[in-house]
Amino acid sequence: MEKERFASRRENLRRLMAEEKLDALIVSQPANRFYLSGFELHDCQCNESSGCLVIDARGKDILCTDSRYEEAAARIWDGEVFIYRGASSEELNGLLSGRYGATGRIGIEAEHLAAAWVRRFEPGLTVAEADGLVEKLRVIKDDEEIRLIAESVALNHRMLEWLPSVLTPGTDEAAVAWSIERWYREHGASELSFPSIVAVDGNAALPHYAPDRPAVIRDGCMVLVDEGARFGGYCSDQTRTCWVGEKPDPRFTAMLELVQEAQRRAIAALRPGISGRDVHLIALRCFEEQGADRYFTHALGHGVGLETHEGPRLSTRNPDLLRPGMIVTIEPGLYYPGWGGCRWEHMAVITEDGCRVF
Amino acid sequence: MEKERFASRRENLRRLMAEEKLDALIVSQPANRFYLSGFELHDCQCNESSGCLVIDARGKDILCTDSRYEEAAARIWDGEVFIYRGASSEELNGLLSGRYGATGRIGIEAEHLAAAWVRRFEPGLTVAEADGLVEKLRVIKDDEEIRLIAESVALNHRMLEWLPSVLTPGTDEAAVAWSIERWYREHGASELSFPSIVAVDGNAALPHYAPDRPAVIRDGCMVLVDEGARFGGYCSDQTRTCWVGEKPDPRFTAMLELVQEAQRRAIAALRPGISGRDVHLIALRCFEEQGADRYFTHALGHGVGLETHEGPRLSTRNPDLLRPGMIVTIEPGLYYPGWGGCRWEHMAVITEDGCRVF
Repeated sequence: MEKERFASRRENLRRLMAEEKLDALIVSQPANRFYLSGFELHDCQCNESSGCLVIDARGKDILCTDSRYEEAAARIWDGEVFIYRGASSEELNGLLSGRYGATGRIGIEAEHLAAAWVRRFEPGLTVAEADGLVEKLRVIKDDEEIRLIAESVALNHRMLEWLPSVLTPGTDEAAVAWSIERWYREHGASELSFPSIVAVDGNAALPHYAPDRPAVIRDGCMVLVDEGARFGGYCSDQTRTCWVGEKPDPRFTAMLELVQEAQRRAIAALRPGISGRDVHLIALRCFEEQGADRYFTHALGHGVGLETHEGPRLSTRNPDLLRPGMIVTIEPGLYYPGWGGCRWEHMAVITEDGCRVF
Repeated sequence: MEKERFASRRENLRRLMAEEKLDALIVSQPANRFYLSGFELHDCQCNESSGCLVIDARGKDILCTDSRYEEAAARIWDGEVFIYRGASSEELNGLLSGRYGATGRIGIEAEHLAAAWVRRFEPGLTVAEADGLVEKLRVIKDDEEIRLIAESVALNHRMLEWLPSVLTPGTDEAAVAWSIERWYREHGASELSFPSIVAVDGNAALPHYAPDRPAVIRDGCMVLVDEGARFGGYCSDQTRTCWVGEKPDPRFTAMLELVQEAQRRAIAALRPGISGRDVHLIALRCFEEQGADRYFTHALGHGVGLETHEGPRLSTRNPDLLRPGMIVTIEPGLYYPGWGGCRWEHMAVITEDGCRVF
């Protein structure tokens, strides 16, 4: 069943490869590799690959890896397994020279493969940059993926319901982050989607804050929490900003309401046929009306799936139109250096006639 | 104090750059970047850089990153900060064209930078592959690094003393792995060095085992545990294999004793001037004497520091001689498919006249 799903994805990829006239495509980007085979969602280290797939135009795909993964490969892969013993670049050159000769057109993911690896791999082969083919498939989630992501976000919602119990005066940002991680792991998540951001007051003005010396929650402060976890293979990503203490600062309340209004308008506009750029601009316009647009310093959102950050972007740089099955974050924010900030983030799937917020 | 240490490492790097006649070196490999500046030990995602350093032959270094890291950069970097707003490859091309012209020789870490990034970055510049320069510095640890790694390994030893309390019949491999992670995080580690391997019986025969369906510890089984955590910035990495239950299988005891003997001999040989290859062969020879060498299927060890896997390798492929200040794992193992396996791993620093096991 699982294997059939991977096989059918590889068939879809072959159609895209035919348009690019590729005889083979080397898939080494870990999430792409996993999406097509179920083999190793992560590399050993960023600079240490766990292997790659050679997707063949005529269906004779090969899983290439080193001996550490031989057993794992055998379990999930019915086709040919190629174990390299030395440098993968040179041994793959040998394998593919034999199979495709000097003229067979071999695509590579050049945004992912190291330049030196490609230099060692290329001699005697016809190599073409062919990035984004698997991503073109991944950006549209199928029903099973949408179901898994909905479950992952449901777990995220449960964590958020529990979260106020640890946002207590005297607790520092790092302790809250660890409590979140522990909660997720003890409720079935395999890992965090990304290191949680827990930021008090002035730290909340930094969209990507990671504490050296964690600040402590006081009675009467704002706390921004941006977090997510991987559950059933898929990532979630949500942000909330709340006030700890009895009476919220009116300036905080006004900021939060404006951010939530920007999010509401963006969500109301989410539907097939609108561009990522235009959704971003709808939120930006909401801030412009209140003269706050220069405090909104990042893109409105991004796709989420096997990776926390994937396509499509909701930003001025993405003119592409949204389509059903895409899953995005909608995360407007306002950041006032030195004082504080606010971000409010949900995830939604684009449906036939609008969107469904998870 | 911290800043001075980073500055002095950059001066050491400039000496290596002079040998390669480089006017500048772009350092993008995360651990290298951190080693030279304290800026971001991790990239956002493997395929999403947090920034790079431009190390200048005449000392005018630049930290390049995007706006998310602007504040973090300002905190740790006294020199020029360059914030790119769009594609880093093209904006860095503009920056470096202006500074070095068409003929200034610019080194890149081609084993780390993506081929497509380099293609966009290169036009109009003189670019040279210059890998391994920072690694050449990192492979020799200074006194402060050795102190930090000793502390990291000391934490690992404390965890190992506690570990038997969770290796109890009825507990599965995944639960043990999570217990280890929680212990580390609650005792000051910032993260695991790598996902822990906890492998029962036949699973212990897979050197790189990660469970889909975790096996359960029984009364009377072997358990291999390979684990480590980052503490004070530095990784530890140790493996133990033990018997759970009253009377160990004599075949297990014999295997364990042979592996420990191979480790003892390798450690006795560790000293400046021996090659990584020769240390590996000493362990291999110990297995050969008992006709077990074909069950020792990986390299004897590897360097550890800011990364779990770094130089030097103790393997047949490393003819380079060990030097004082290098830190390595010594991890012989024997693996019998279907039945079980054993690995025994310590870390040691090469001293002036031998080694010191942590």
